[in-house]
Amino acid sequence: MGLFSKDIKTMDDLFVHRLQDIYYAENQIYKSLPKMIDQASEPELRQGLEQHRAQTANHIKRLEQVFKQHGAEAKAVDCPAIDGILEEADEVAGEVASASAPGIGSACAAIIAAAQAVEHYEITRYGTLVAWAKQLGREDCAALLKQNLDEEYAADDKLSLLAKSGINSRAAA
Amino acid sequence: MGLFSKDIKTMDDLFVHRLQDIYYAENQIYKSLPKMIDQASEPELRQGLEQHRAQTANHIKRLEQVFKQHGAEAKAVDCPAIDGILEEADEVAGEVASASAPGIGSACAAIIAAAQAVEHYEITRYGTLVAWAKQLGREDCAALLKQNLDEEYAADDKLSLLAKSGINSRAAA
Repeated sequence: MGLFSKDIKTMDDLFVHRLQDIYYAENQIYKSLPKMIDQASEPELRQGLEQHRAQTANHIKRLEQVFKQHGAEAKAVDCPAIDGILEEADEVAGEVASASAPGIGSACAAIIAAAQAVEHYEITRYGTLVAWAKQLGREDCAALLKQNLDEEYAADDKLSLLAKSGINSRAAA
Repeated sequence: MGLFSKDIKTMDDLFVHRLQDIYYAENQIYKSLPKMIDQASEPELRQGLEQHRAQTANHIKRLEQVFKQHGAEAKAVDCPAIDGILEEADEVAGEVASASAPGIGSACAAIIAAAQAVEHYEITRYGTLVAWAKQLGREDCAALLKQNLDEEYAADDKLSLLAKSGINSRAAA
């Protein structure tokens, strides 16, 4: 992010910059999900993450549509925040997964927590983008971004349900 | 995070690891806030961030209490996620702030968005920690962590109100 973007002067520049940032984030998430899926031993969690990967591909397409509608180039800018979140997810899941048998439940709990950190990051960014698109009078862009936002909320709710429905309880047992 | 923590085997290990992670995050946030406050030209935003810094000092103390209650050492482990979020906040705010006059409103919008990314990260982590503390039968720890969680939610709500109350609208004007 931002190393070459000393030209953020207006709200419009900021909007496009944040779009590029979430575009990068979605692409990195898409690339990271297969490893998380491999580490998920619980079938429900595995299936949920697989569905989320398909959704992520769709989010990327919607973002490309937003760039197009707004007359901006669909490009990604480095986003240290998502890099950090994914790095942390990778480290913890790897460590827990490589631990001995009692860690299997904990590995799923760790993956859920990591996936929720990703979701919350996206929810924050899409929340901001929807608000900014509206302020810029771009209801068309806001509508598309809102679809991504709603799907991130739904994904987060599913993860919360999974956590409550027993994966974490089994891990604590 | 985690470079020396190949010993995460149980839910309890994971809980302590996440505690160390948020302990690091809160300390980094405390250190980063003065720069954000300096960059905030809107008095309401400035005041909100100052209040939040005092709250953050209190969160750190509560975390130390949780460590103590749980019989674990209050230590911090590197957390690439918060490092990335703060790095991004710093870059964008700096770039927008150094831009020309029309960027002043945008700078506040950028700071609000950055501060909300921080809040949402904390909300995710505290949400997980409260759930895990309960599963581990540590209602005493859960109660303290819940206080931090509630204050992060309140801080996030305040930022949303500020964003809606006109700072962003002025930036878009």
